Amino acid sequence: MQHTITFTFDDKPITVTVPTNTMLSDAAQLAGLDIGQPCGGQGRCGRCAVQVTDGNVRRRSTLRLSPGDVGQGFALACQSVVEGDVSIYVPPQEKIERRLTTDRVVAEVTVPEGYEYPSDQTVRRIHLELTPPSMDDQTDDWSRLQTALRLQANINKVNVSLGLLQTIGNVLRVGEWNVTAVLEYPLEDLEQPVRLISLQPHHVDEYSPLWGCAIDIGTTTVSVWLVDLVSGQVRAQVAEYNGQIVRGEDVISRIMYANKSGGGQELRQRVLDTINELLETACKRVKAKPEDVVKATIAGNSTMIHLLLGIPASNIRLSPFITAVNHPPLMRAGDVGINIHSQASVDCLPGVASYVGADITAGVLSSGLDVAEDVILFLDVGTNGETVLGNRDWLVTCACSAGPAFEGAGVVNGMRATTGAIEEVWVNSDTFEPTYRVIGGGKPKGICGSGLISLLSEAFITGIIDKAGNVNLMKSSSRLRDGAHGGEYVVAWGTESESGEDIVLSRVDVDNLLRAKAAIYAGFTVLADTVGIPLESVSKVLIGGSFGKYINVEKAVQIGLLPDMPWEQFDFLGNTSVRGAYYALLDWRKRDQITEIAKRMTYIELSADNSFYEAFTSALFLPHTDMSKFPSVASALER
Amino acid sequence: MQHTITFTFDDKPITVTVPTNTMLSDAAQLAGLDIGQPCGGQGRCGRCAVQVTDGNVRRRSTLRLSPGDVGQGFALACQSVVEGDVSIYVPPQEKIERRLTTDRVVAEVTVPEGYEYPSDQTVRRIHLELTPPSMDDQTDDWSRLQTALRLQANINKVNVSLGLLQTIGNVLRVGEWNVTAVLEYPLEDLEQPVRLISLQPHHVDEYSPLWGCAIDIGTTTVSVWLVDLVSGQVRAQVAEYNGQIVRGEDVISRIMYANKSGGGQELRQRVLDTINELLETACKRVKAKPEDVVKATIAGNSTMIHLLLGIPASNIRLSPFITAVNHPPLMRAGDVGINIHSQASVDCLPGVASYVGADITAGVLSSGLDVAEDVILFLDVGTNGETVLGNRDWLVTCACSAGPAFEGAGVVNGMRATTGAIEEVWVNSDTFEPTYRVIGGGKPKGICGSGLISLLSEAFITGIIDKAGNVNLMKSSSRLRDGAHGGEYVVAWGTESESGEDIVLSRVDVDNLLRAKAAIYAGFTVLADTVGIPLESVSKVLIGGSFGKYINVEKAVQIGLLPDMPWEQFDFLGNTSVRGAYYALLDWRKRDQITEIAKRMTYIELSADNSFYEAFTSALFLPHTDMSKFPSVASALER
Repeated sequence: MQHTITFTFDDKPITVTVPTNTMLSDAAQLAGLDIGQPCGGQGRCGRCAVQVTDGNVRRRSTLRLSPGDVGQGFALACQSVVEGDVSIYVPPQEKIERRLTTDRVVAEVTVPEGYEYPSDQTVRRIHLELTPPSMDDQTDDWSRLQTALRLQANINKVNVSLGLLQTIGNVLRVGEWNVTAVLEYPLEDLEQPVRLISLQPHHVDEYSPLWGCAIDIGTTTVSVWLVDLVSGQVRAQVAEYNGQIVRGEDVISRIMYANKSGGGQELRQRVLDTINELLETACKRVKAKPEDVVKATIAGNSTMIHLLLGIPASNIRLSPFITAVNHPPLMRAGDVGINIHSQASVDCLPGVASYVGADITAGVLSSGLDVAEDVILFLDVGTNGETVLGNRDWLVTCACSAGPAFEGAGVVNGMRATTGAIEEVWVNSDTFEPTYRVIGGGKPKGICGSGLISLLSEAFITGIIDKAGNVNLMKSSSRLRDGAHGGEYVVAWGTESESGEDIVLSRVDVDNLLRAKAAIYAGFTVLADTVGIPLESVSKVLIGGSFGKYINVEKAVQIGLLPDMPWEQFDFLGNTSVRGAYYALLDWRKRDQITEIAKRMTYIELSADNSFYEAFTSALFLPHTDMSKFPSVASALER
Repeated sequence: MQHTITFTFDDKPITVTVPTNTMLSDAAQLAGLDIGQPCGGQGRCGRCAVQVTDGNVRRRSTLRLSPGDVGQGFALACQSVVEGDVSIYVPPQEKIERRLTTDRVVAEVTVPEGYEYPSDQTVRRIHLELTPPSMDDQTDDWSRLQTALRLQANINKVNVSLGLLQTIGNVLRVGEWNVTAVLEYPLEDLEQPVRLISLQPHHVDEYSPLWGCAIDIGTTTVSVWLVDLVSGQVRAQVAEYNGQIVRGEDVISRIMYANKSGGGQELRQRVLDTINELLETACKRVKAKPEDVVKATIAGNSTMIHLLLGIPASNIRLSPFITAVNHPPLMRAGDVGINIHSQASVDCLPGVASYVGADITAGVLSSGLDVAEDVILFLDVGTNGETVLGNRDWLVTCACSAGPAFEGAGVVNGMRATTGAIEEVWVNSDTFEPTYRVIGGGKPKGICGSGLISLLSEAFITGIIDKAGNVNLMKSSSRLRDGAHGGEYVVAWGTESESGEDIVLSRVDVDNLLRAKAAIYAGFTVLADTVGIPLESVSKVLIGGSFGKYINVEKAVQIGLLPDMPWEQFDFLGNTSVRGAYYALLDWRKRDQITEIAKRMTYIELSADNSFYEAFTSALFLPHTDMSKFPSVASALER
């Protein structure tokens, strides 16, 4: 049976006809409305709530709606199905700002010492002069080119694609038998054939750029570095939100969305669109064309790599947590869907396990952990909370499902670290009045990860919340009050905020943050315990991930996210993943080194280990049940 | 400026609007009318003539139209451009019968002695039992499969496509970790990786068929043999006209058509459609699906292979006559566009030169010429007139542009060897009354190649035409008369024929036939002269091509097409090309042997050689200027 659904969005009505049991979110998509589903359509985040103004829908879940909300007709679009004609009001959608975040991610990059083109490169550009054919020499074009490669470049075996073969005759003649070949040499095995990437009908200046790109696909942000392989220099750095965000903020939500019909294909296209737009922007800056780029290395967590390649990721989230592929074979850009030269190699770097991917192996390479003498702890403070411990002799790794709280998701007034986010908070211990700093300097819209860490720490130190996370309503301040989700603290009044509504830290938010920090803390402590290394013997804590750049160490220690160690032992490395991809792009030995790192890393599955749950539970307090582990915090509390 | 063109076809008017200078044939295509252009749109064949009933067109060429035709408004669609509004009558088009010609091409095939699966095969089917993953063994799916291949099949390196990688996780789980892998082993170099073609989620019976196919792409006919690689048996043979025929009957016409905008793409699609339809039919017969076919070998002349692969063929017809590729690399069916398993290898066999292609190297293999002790002459009596001379020690080859006269094109009442074609003629030497045999037994529609040879020979022996081809109008018979194209002989009166019009052999036809037979005769005699081998020392003349099966040796000798040798020295081999492709499909040593044949063959370019023109001119008579070369004909004439 068919029903008429009238959506009202932005004051305009849009009508579609759908059969019984159509999900409201699907009907909206049919109507051309893009309702955000940060949790991937699981009914967990509540962001897709719409208001039924006429008629009725069947609500499968109202988990994120209060009885009052339901009374007012609210329903989750991803959890409600159509059973009759109905009118739906769609509230204004949170705009996912797809602005280039280049300003915040520009990293200082120097070409690795001793880099030498072409000896470190797998990609080379070679000039060839061929003898033109004649009635006395009727050799076919392809054999003629192979002969020139043999005699002039010492190449005995060369592979070519059908697409390229279709163009060779024309290129040779347009170039009057003087051409430039771009070739890729085998990475591991010199017995393997060289591969012809492109043939150009002219000679190219020896020092003109030969373009490659290093890509990091983060769950939240995609970064692209455009590199001149001749000089080794990074000539453009761009970054943008991963276009998949509207379909889930963490990898689990994405995997679940990918499992829906057409979901995997949609997510694949979304991340390809992001990458291709970034490449376009980066190339424009150096006056190149994307098809001039002849090589790409890609880092990213295992889920991101699976989704990019269109490989089902469902087994990543189901016990025993198996990836389809940790070491993807070398592929062609045309097959992957990346709009650089279609014959360019796309080298997806190797990962270790479902939750320790190529972003971590690349991060280990660029941090130097795998060649360090002393024991180093490497933390990626993000949704997956990957941790690596080790040195040049051994490497162990684990991941804990920290959740996206530190990235602003699952927190009532949480948001990503963009314009309008409160990124740091100070609270007066007498009056409980806060001061805060907003990214961009304008009115606050919400609180981002570093702001949440800062706020949680200040609230704890000033006694607004106790060590268990309870909001102390006994303190006399109008900022402390009973809210819809239990006790809450008002960080910014509606009069100051962008939306006109109060920005608060609620009891539910505190619980989410406690779970996130406890997971990360429990992760590295259990990992250290498993290999019998006391945390005190760790010489450095390296923090990767672009998020990691903005954490205030003191406050992160105060909430028990980072171990209580002297501040000088912490190093913030920024995006170690794209940097590792850049090293691998430049130098085949570095590329081999990442494979070695992936092989050397022993993955510890925390979910198989009861001690993780014990450590997690003990860490669910501020900063920890065992205060002896946090002497600096104990003394701060005494003060 | 835009003009309105109204076509009337099959009593229905169709109107299109086109700009000034649009070719009528393009306007017709726009109108959805398919006007045949057997010469490829060069204005040579006259088959695309249409009648201008209102308005005017500009005729660039009227070569094939009489002044009377032009007076009646006739114009060649491929040579006339639009200059104003115009009405066009399109005569009924000759139907290209795309009937399966299986009945005429079924060849007796026995599996080569000693064929052994899998040792002779590059494709193998292997059963694998994998250990399921667990929390103690979280190896990724692809590594797990590689381990099984290493331990259970001794395979150390295996390549996989992205498309296949996307399916592996699911296949392993559906098959509950018991799967069947189809793999392709490297042809030449055992150091190269094995390639995974498919993975099936179950065990397959060891003796069930594993499908491959051998394909011959002729300029006129495409043949497909479906082969069970396990037993080596040919299980289905099908053949059909090459769908490119409507765009040119010889390779030169096709190359010219391919040079037009979109022409190459159209020809590629036409031959792919033919191949894919044949595969569908063949598979249906054995209750298999085309995607079950995991390997294909393809033979065909160089132009056919270029057009199939979408590689520009234009340099094949321009001096110095260079192909883009003689040894195409191994390709994937999905890339080529052949609808078998997308990962199946497509192996286009190697050719020698622009006019000696893989059909000839495959033909040499299947004829055994390259391993013969005595000197053998191999003739492919077709449009290209390829000739090979040699034995196990040496091989020389040439091609002569014989033209399509023996295939019925360029002859007023010529047609292909299908139902309604006169295939043999006898003429009473007193009355000049003919008797003839028609394929299918009904009313004659025209004369096919073997009919033309027969008719030419009879006309010569009975004195209807003299040794120079002049029709002797002095003979008293109403069948001898002056026609539109000079003297002509009426083979069938309109009262007997299908169309109601007389079927004739005209002076122009005789000239075309003389040129065709002279080219072939000159080809092999110059070739023999070049290597200093007298024709008398040739032990066998092997005639290939499906056309070759129907030639009457005596008559072919009488017109001077074949050398005057004892009949028992002639052998008709049928389609040697598809048979060679079948041998190469079965056995990698045979495949290597074809590469060796291609390398060993010395190509003699006749157009560079003045002696060819001398030999050609001498052979333009019946049977030859030098009667001492044809003693049997001399004595027949005396009788």
